[in-house]
Amino acid sequence: MRQRNKPWADDFLKDNQHLIIPNPKDYKGKWNELFNNNNPIHIEIGTGKGQFIVGMAKQFPNINFIGIELAKSVIVTAAQKVLDSGQSNILMLNENAMELGDIFENEEVANIYLNFSDPWPKNRHEKRRLTFHTFLDTYRKILNKDGQVIFKTDNRGLFEYSLVSFSKFGMTLEEVTLNLHALEDPENVMTEYEEKFSAKGNPIYRCKTSF
Amino acid sequence: MRQRNKPWADDFLKDNQHLIIPNPKDYKGKWNELFNNNNPIHIEIGTGKGQFIVGMAKQFPNINFIGIELAKSVIVTAAQKVLDSGQSNILMLNENAMELGDIFENEEVANIYLNFSDPWPKNRHEKRRLTFHTFLDTYRKILNKDGQVIFKTDNRGLFEYSLVSFSKFGMTLEEVTLNLHALEDPENVMTEYEEKFSAKGNPIYRCKTSF
Repeated sequence: MRQRNKPWADDFLKDNQHLIIPNPKDYKGKWNELFNNNNPIHIEIGTGKGQFIVGMAKQFPNINFIGIELAKSVIVTAAQKVLDSGQSNILMLNENAMELGDIFENEEVANIYLNFSDPWPKNRHEKRRLTFHTFLDTYRKILNKDGQVIFKTDNRGLFEYSLVSFSKFGMTLEEVTLNLHALEDPENVMTEYEEKFSAKGNPIYRCKTSF
Repeated sequence: MRQRNKPWADDFLKDNQHLIIPNPKDYKGKWNELFNNNNPIHIEIGTGKGQFIVGMAKQFPNINFIGIELAKSVIVTAAQKVLDSGQSNILMLNENAMELGDIFENEEVANIYLNFSDPWPKNRHEKRRLTFHTFLDTYRKILNKDGQVIFKTDNRGLFEYSLVSFSKFGMTLEEVTLNLHALEDPENVMTEYEEKFSAKGNPIYRCKTSF
């Protein structure tokens, strides 16, 4: 997800270091100190404009959420949404998912959400997909033993690829849903993108997987 | 799949014991003797009216196919189709899938096809679904080590259930296709049911799995 460059983004990040943590590797193994509690930590990789993480944080006040988003021009929108919400159980990281193993201690994370990740449809870009095995290897390390990877997408090709990738990595599919909105899961929080796509009648796919 | 009772079905079965084998447990471990060759054996569980198995047998003359169908009034239609085709690489069994472990020796089968199996949507009928773990346990025994279970359906609920069931049994998803006819697999042979459903634009799901 790309937006036009926002020249004020750097200043915004500097002014909101309590929310968008600038040196996250310093907190490896210590994230609960920053939240001032021992609640479980759920992370969203590719948090986009923040509707999902803010909605989840409201619905689950006893869970700590960390949203990770690489695009600076996008994370500021999400961060503003977090500030507006007044939720204290959210932190954000302007980081690359490849760094996760240096940001979180082994088993520090209780759930990982991947929402409408970039499908990278070309074969030569397979390594960039967030469900490629190198990423799964990192997720396995940072997740605790009951932890799940919860993945939603409207992209059929990426979902097909990911089910096979999870399975070949030895992960277990705990739940597969090929039309999430037909299921009417009252706990489902929609992303901005999901709202737009499901309104068109496109099916949303979801799976919950464990290691 | 049910059809009206066919009073001549018993006679037909009696007259065609070279094709619809009456005591299949006698051939456990010896199916290749009946085919007079050592070609791999592929079985279809719930062979219905026979369009799939006849089409596959034509496409793969060096594979032996065995179609298993419990409904007597249906298997006679399939058997007539086999006779009309003149294919010698097909045999049929009017048997229950629960008997497979007594009909085939361990590792005697190279591939298992499940096509548009009865979804048994009620929870209390879960045990009857052909992808319930008791069936998977039998498939694991009779399949050779490179063997696959290849499953097609248009039933979303059954497909979702089956992916999870395969995964929890420790099987590996080798391929998942959520819209088979968008893929245009030239090797795909359609069942009668598949032809009707895909013509309406309904997606056909397929997965290939290994143990």
